[in-house]
Amino acid sequence: MTDCTRTERTRVRRNPSRGVYDRAVIDAILDEAPICHLGLVDDGQPLVLPTIHARVGDDLLLHGSAAGRAMRVLAAGAPVCVTVTLVDGLVLARSAFHHSMNYRSVVLLGRASLVEGDEAKTAALEAFTEKLVPGRWPEVRWPTRQELKGTIVLSMPIDEGSAKVRSGPPVDDDADYELDVWAGVVPLSTAPGEPIPDTDGPIPAHVLAYSARHQA
Amino acid sequence: MTDCTRTERTRVRRNPSRGVYDRAVIDAILDEAPICHLGLVDDGQPLVLPTIHARVGDDLLLHGSAAGRAMRVLAAGAPVCVTVTLVDGLVLARSAFHHSMNYRSVVLLGRASLVEGDEAKTAALEAFTEKLVPGRWPEVRWPTRQELKGTIVLSMPIDEGSAKVRSGPPVDDDADYELDVWAGVVPLSTAPGEPIPDTDGPIPAHVLAYSARHQA
Repeated sequence: MTDCTRTERTRVRRNPSRGVYDRAVIDAILDEAPICHLGLVDDGQPLVLPTIHARVGDDLLLHGSAAGRAMRVLAAGAPVCVTVTLVDGLVLARSAFHHSMNYRSVVLLGRASLVEGDEAKTAALEAFTEKLVPGRWPEVRWPTRQELKGTIVLSMPIDEGSAKVRSGPPVDDDADYELDVWAGVVPLSTAPGEPIPDTDGPIPAHVLAYSARHQA
Repeated sequence: MTDCTRTERTRVRRNPSRGVYDRAVIDAILDEAPICHLGLVDDGQPLVLPTIHARVGDDLLLHGSAAGRAMRVLAAGAPVCVTVTLVDGLVLARSAFHHSMNYRSVVLLGRASLVEGDEAKTAALEAFTEKLVPGRWPEVRWPTRQELKGTIVLSMPIDEGSAKVRSGPPVDDDADYELDVWAGVVPLSTAPGEPIPDTDGPIPAHVLAYSARHQA
């Protein structure tokens, strides 16, 4: 694991003190976020699509239907941007201008390549499933050859990118600290609710563990 | 308010039954989501950046630092994509293949134009503030001319776009309903925590109302 290169394209220019190129920080954000936003250019038009991702070592995996346009554009080697954002809180400053969010985001640039072969594709689908709910893969019916054929899996190296992190209290102009305005942070997090079963029988341990982990 | 046009670019092609072009649905998603992901093309490279947005009638407002590259690219009339995604749950199917997410997303395409003049820019900043935490704007110190000068505000019409919505239980292949695999949905939502004050004094009503609204 090597840190991401700080290219002219990925250097954090706005609020550079928030820029992080450390792979441990980048990986933790990629691993925590349930979804990413995938950017591509289609006939000159930028498109941003929500999808799920999984990190395996130094690669980020993406997948989609073989019939879908986005996957085919990317499989052909088009440049891609994958952005992941975790919203951690609203930052309520004394001035309107200094209102902000606490967040952790990652922007990765690169090109994706096709993951081919039933074994490699199955391993990738295992990674997606286990990332969302660890312990789920051994419990479910695994993909058939037909299902694998209908799925495109793409891999992109995690080598050109950066994280951007804001945390902590509001930062106001000196003079504004005199004002009688309540300031502070409202933390935000993603919280699971009670599972809604579609089957009879007890809720399995891996599902309960998922809920417990995220409520902690 | 007119519904969004279903152009060749915004027609939902994958799972077309999930496509929604109804402005009431689109607006509700835009209004609920705290952030969007903004897509642009910079020298052939797609870039996806998290930012906040606010809807005012038939327009979506964006803003950023006048010193930032993205805002300048968009202010020059480059094509833009704004995508908003609310993750509502993990859909745990009997088969790995039919695992999914419940979500509500909106993809808007278009071009943005500059919002100019101190009055119009101030009104836009009010819209951002009030969208995040209703009741906040009257309490805070408003932008100075210098702050307005340092802020670019962009407006794009909400006319070419679509929403995509998945809700409800997993949908498995007929044969898989026989399997002894627990299936169901784990709902996910954004939950505020206890406000962390940066000032003395009681937490004001608009902040308490924000927390209460989101916990309901």
